[in-house]
Amino acid sequence: MTEEHPQELRAAPRTVISVDAMGGDRGAAAVVAGISLSATKNPDIRFILHGQRDELERLVARRKPLRGRVEIRHADGVVTMDAKPSHVMRHGQDTSMWSAIDSVRNGEATVAVSCGNTGALMLLSIMRLRKLPGVNRPAIACLWPSRNPGGFNVMLDVGADVRADERDLLQYALMGTSYARNGLGLERPRVGLLNVGTEENKGRAELKAAHDLIDAAAESANYSFVGFVEGGDIPSAKVDVIVTDGFTGNVALKTGEGTAKLLSDFMREAFTATPLSKMAALLAYTSLRRLKKRMDPRRANGGVFLGLNGTVVKSHGASDATGVSAAVKLAFELAQSGFTERLAARVAASNATEPESVRELAGGSKR
Amino acid sequence: MTEEHPQELRAAPRTVISVDAMGGDRGAAAVVAGISLSATKNPDIRFILHGQRDELERLVARRKPLRGRVEIRHADGVVTMDAKPSHVMRHGQDTSMWSAIDSVRNGEATVAVSCGNTGALMLLSIMRLRKLPGVNRPAIACLWPSRNPGGFNVMLDVGADVRADERDLLQYALMGTSYARNGLGLERPRVGLLNVGTEENKGRAELKAAHDLIDAAAESANYSFVGFVEGGDIPSAKVDVIVTDGFTGNVALKTGEGTAKLLSDFMREAFTATPLSKMAALLAYTSLRRLKKRMDPRRANGGVFLGLNGTVVKSHGASDATGVSAAVKLAFELAQSGFTERLAARVAASNATEPESVRELAGGSKR
Repeated sequence: MTEEHPQELRAAPRTVISVDAMGGDRGAAAVVAGISLSATKNPDIRFILHGQRDELERLVARRKPLRGRVEIRHADGVVTMDAKPSHVMRHGQDTSMWSAIDSVRNGEATVAVSCGNTGALMLLSIMRLRKLPGVNRPAIACLWPSRNPGGFNVMLDVGADVRADERDLLQYALMGTSYARNGLGLERPRVGLLNVGTEENKGRAELKAAHDLIDAAAESANYSFVGFVEGGDIPSAKVDVIVTDGFTGNVALKTGEGTAKLLSDFMREAFTATPLSKMAALLAYTSLRRLKKRMDPRRANGGVFLGLNGTVVKSHGASDATGVSAAVKLAFELAQSGFTERLAARVAASNATEPESVRELAGGSKR
Repeated sequence: MTEEHPQELRAAPRTVISVDAMGGDRGAAAVVAGISLSATKNPDIRFILHGQRDELERLVARRKPLRGRVEIRHADGVVTMDAKPSHVMRHGQDTSMWSAIDSVRNGEATVAVSCGNTGALMLLSIMRLRKLPGVNRPAIACLWPSRNPGGFNVMLDVGADVRADERDLLQYALMGTSYARNGLGLERPRVGLLNVGTEENKGRAELKAAHDLIDAAAESANYSFVGFVEGGDIPSAKVDVIVTDGFTGNVALKTGEGTAKLLSDFMREAFTATPLSKMAALLAYTSLRRLKKRMDPRRANGGVFLGLNGTVVKSHGASDATGVSAAVKLAFELAQSGFTERLAARVAASNATEPESVRELAGGSKR
């Protein structure tokens, strides 16, 4: 029997990712193309794909790398981009998003990936997976291209909740530390708190309180606290984890993306402006390609929901195959590192202000 | 007598700008170089320069374009970048910043320009110039490179006050409209309110209230309200004025600057990476130079304080000659358009929610 299924044998330490195939701006075709890309690069990955069975079977059949590595789960409904999260929560049982999250809830998959409606995905994730004991507000963490050797910084919250008090911000610092440790391989991440100035007397009152809480927990949770940082420091090499509320974080994330898009467009125009500049673009082809890749927002695709019994990765709504593949790669890496279990086991019924629990919430040291 | 002073005659409609020569990161030399650049380009401009007389006389004497066009006012003290604004307010009477603002207060100059400590400049400006009747929180407006034909959008508040309730946000919309009309020449500016989504049910409670207030005032104040906009829309062509609180605006501004800086560095690296790419850079010299100019943050230098009896332009602390010159140009244009008087006369003792006063606060139509 085993002889007849050599592929399954070889894939013994395989990781299963649950993927919501519907609800992205580009439909199921982009999602299937994306997971196919991931399957080609990564022999250890398997998928449970949620959505319209007929459409998905047709799309998957066309992709050789997906042969025998995808299980399709039929779901009739789709969560649209303009759906009200509260409505989806009450009436979305038949949707591919619900089904994708439930595969993580049931333990069939380690991480779920979706390109759909962020608000609905967050609310469904909280409802189906439940918050970790001790976590008040879950957060979405994103990777931000930076000057650090690894090429990325972590920022959270970028949109799970528009509010956050000082204790929430402390939890973000702890969860962000754990993410940076498991996702970026940093032993002792440097944490900064986003503010409008680096002086301690600046900014909102809750930020001063958060400053002191995060400072006090640094030693026991094994991170360095660099204090307040400003918007300009987000891509800098002086910090690894940037902590902020979901309103500010979301505005900053989209402002950064918008600025990068504007400059990319300016650059494209500059290199198609004259015959001479076109020739120059040809000459600098390799350098420009590397630059384009470095600036490509799809590389950093994937917001990770932190603070739940299970990990969910939100891929950009407009993700194409490359974007989906990047989100799947991130999901795979988090699954492999045992991130969910590590965070979950250590949070336990912790009270984040007790040094011992603080250390646990921050994910401890690498094993 | 007039025959002997032909230069003064020619400059009859001259505009006087009050300049704080000290307190910037690069010292008085950069400031004097900057105003010299402005003087070269603009024959109608005069300066009152505040700071250490000896140093300034020496610096000014070296610049031919400044001959006969600068009056130096001695001030012993300098407001340092790390000075506490409240301390400056109590003990800063001898500083160049105080003196520069007082030239506007006394009516000797139309607009003041400073590269110094933003918090101190704001506090001193409020104390010496006083808020316009009817204005609760003054705001700092900045120009943001955009896809609009004029090349810039207006955003406010970018850091005068970390708080803003719905009525403050309405005032920002009205003041921003006036700035866009007088500074960018837009007859009916499009106003957007910064949020984390464009749906009306998203974001913080005060933003929903502000949404309704700004919407209701649009007709009488002669602007179009495009509703909520997101961070990615700040440089877009779908809006001219972006309204937000000073905390969010400051983070967005610095995030945008930081992102632009990161990408510029990436680009420079790409074009010095290999001999081939260096050759390409040479070939595309003109296009790259235009691109560099387009991306140059110094071009958009100058935050304008709105809501006071007098106009103050805050130049970036690290401004070089080009940056200072851009801030002076902005100050000159605002002075020429009669912006201060227009805003002041029309705000009067207005109650911003009354349609008539709303129209006045927004600067009315162009004369």
